Amino acid sequence: MPLSNIRVLDLTRIISGPFCSALLADMGAEVIKVEPRETGDPVRMQGELKEGLSWYFANYNRNKKSITLDLYSQAGKDVLARLIPTCDVVIENFRPDIMEKMGFGPERLKQLKPDIVHCSINGFGTSGPYRDRPAFDFIAQAMSGFMSLNGEADGPPLRAGPPISDLTAGLYGALAVTTALLRRERTGEGDSVSVSLLNSMVSLLSFQAVNYFASGKLPPRTGNDHGIASPYGMFRTRDGQVAIAPSNDTFYFKVLDALDLQHLKEHPDFATNALRFRNREAIKILLEARTLQETSEYWIERLNRWGVPCGSVLSLDQVFDDPQVQDQEMAIDVPHPGHGTIRMLGFPIKFAQAPCAIQRPAPELGGHTDEVLSAVGYSADEIAHMRDAGTI
Amino acid sequence: MPLSNIRVLDLTRIISGPFCSALLADMGAEVIKVEPRETGDPVRMQGELKEGLSWYFANYNRNKKSITLDLYSQAGKDVLARLIPTCDVVIENFRPDIMEKMGFGPERLKQLKPDIVHCSINGFGTSGPYRDRPAFDFIAQAMSGFMSLNGEADGPPLRAGPPISDLTAGLYGALAVTTALLRRERTGEGDSVSVSLLNSMVSLLSFQAVNYFASGKLPPRTGNDHGIASPYGMFRTRDGQVAIAPSNDTFYFKVLDALDLQHLKEHPDFATNALRFRNREAIKILLEARTLQETSEYWIERLNRWGVPCGSVLSLDQVFDDPQVQDQEMAIDVPHPGHGTIRMLGFPIKFAQAPCAIQRPAPELGGHTDEVLSAVGYSADEIAHMRDAGTI
Repeated sequence: MPLSNIRVLDLTRIISGPFCSALLADMGAEVIKVEPRETGDPVRMQGELKEGLSWYFANYNRNKKSITLDLYSQAGKDVLARLIPTCDVVIENFRPDIMEKMGFGPERLKQLKPDIVHCSINGFGTSGPYRDRPAFDFIAQAMSGFMSLNGEADGPPLRAGPPISDLTAGLYGALAVTTALLRRERTGEGDSVSVSLLNSMVSLLSFQAVNYFASGKLPPRTGNDHGIASPYGMFRTRDGQVAIAPSNDTFYFKVLDALDLQHLKEHPDFATNALRFRNREAIKILLEARTLQETSEYWIERLNRWGVPCGSVLSLDQVFDDPQVQDQEMAIDVPHPGHGTIRMLGFPIKFAQAPCAIQRPAPELGGHTDEVLSAVGYSADEIAHMRDAGTI
Repeated sequence: MPLSNIRVLDLTRIISGPFCSALLADMGAEVIKVEPRETGDPVRMQGELKEGLSWYFANYNRNKKSITLDLYSQAGKDVLARLIPTCDVVIENFRPDIMEKMGFGPERLKQLKPDIVHCSINGFGTSGPYRDRPAFDFIAQAMSGFMSLNGEADGPPLRAGPPISDLTAGLYGALAVTTALLRRERTGEGDSVSVSLLNSMVSLLSFQAVNYFASGKLPPRTGNDHGIASPYGMFRTRDGQVAIAPSNDTFYFKVLDALDLQHLKEHPDFATNALRFRNREAIKILLEARTLQETSEYWIERLNRWGVPCGSVLSLDQVFDDPQVQDQEMAIDVPHPGHGTIRMLGFPIKFAQAPCAIQRPAPELGGHTDEVLSAVGYSADEIAHMRDAGTI
């Protein structure tokens, strides 16, 4: 697998960090998840639990090993110091000063493992006035400007449904780690890298941000309409709605052909995108009068045949029943001994030669403590002693 | 820089692919953008243009070189075949069958460069019933189920404001490329990898998808409220609103302390998150009655002091004036000879040792054709001939 023989010490919890390390684990890295005794990662108790297992936890922690460790005790820190030299990567999503306070700042990490790759996933970055503030997906969505662009034209700014700042930060974290590992292969040097929820969301502001930079004008929320393209959006059909997104003149003419509205090609009000955008209500009325005559299925088949991007708004049951999503194996069933078979999200990256795979289900809390500690030289007696003392 | 000496042949256009290659270029890869003569990437003419330059194009094509090439002509294909052996990576966002039709399927690529890393960024994947359909951000948002989770509880499913399926696919593409390069470093083997807009969006469905898998119940849209946590959301203040996101009991008690509502700690209706969620209207009324008494600034300072994640919904002008966003350099000013200084988005990944940097502004169309072609052995005469013939 692509990341075989890469060993990751994973001090993260909740979503952003565990998503990052799950991406690495799916690509073959050995990820050792370090959890507090008794409770473990709080996500173990969140979302829908079946037969005592949170499917939310199972999804984001598949392919990982779990050890318990009391990082507040000196004995726990000693174990950590013995594990780090055996790892290629340390990932954590503490606030920026916590690793230093725990005694594992950049210098110490480098002393323990000179070419370590350290990845911090945090709320606001490792410097600046908000560096020590607590962060949360919703807050990053609000403060990044993302919410100001999300929502209906006459409605309030809206948070995106899924926790996309956590997920995007986790994704940037995985990119940062693999890139730093690539540099290490070539130079022998490690690196310390930081990604934040806020910066990740700002990086998604896209053309809206650069158009604002260029014009000084704030982009409006546009709901399902496009800020600069027309026609575009949801069109009612005989039995529902279809999303149609012709991005330029070529696609616009294809829409007219698919809808048998060839006569509009000569209409002076709709000759250019600028004119169509100015007259977007009128062109929408004309197109929708036609789409209302047939079913969504009819139009999706026909528009696709003409090469026009289109589709239905699907609910989750429809998504996972969809033949394309099934072909792409975006839902996978993973046997969890003692908890039945658990359905979770599949792999969005498809390598031809070295594909992602499930090698193990999400771990029981501390399920690999003995294995991992004996591999770094702790005897069975020492392990038993640490367990009695509450260190592991 | 992390990707120094990595050479990328970039056949992509619009957003998803150019965002992917911009991420690689920002980390030091040499990216050669291949564009059609005369028009180039359509984004050159999209968004706000100043002094003849699209800032949207400038943002997503910084750090790249540009060559023009007619990929429909045999002469153009001959040039491509001569360039590929000099590159480590080929990225394209054509529909899945186009590279094969052009004569550059997986076998040919491997013949030209045995350890090539080929990345396809596409709409729906390289197999399945929709593989040849045209794709577009809006359609992937609709068909992935993302829109079914985005929007107000009593409103329609909504597209996210920014083109997040393009951006997420680009980000997965960059992760796929660096991971395949890392494997190549260790095994000597290349790989062919595919990421799609649809799969990328499905991968963001997060706890909503796994809770659906576990329960069979479709998650509702919840606007700015949380599907399982309470209190949570926007709270009115004397002069605006504040987003407050206490994710568990500990944070909930901190909110009560920060708001001087200690007496609610004993209230039987709000003792657990389950109870607070059932009584979420009541707890919101009680908290908001207090937040209405002071300004947003007051509460943000005070709640953060108590360790509660909170913040304002910022518009883009406020975002880029914010001291944290400025500290993190998430807007950067890049001199473009002939076009003034252009403001664009900064780097979300912060490497300590080998940071991302701007090495060159976005290229003029074909600005590096002569340089790149002479480096692979074309003489000045041959280049002039190809230019006359319309190949470059």
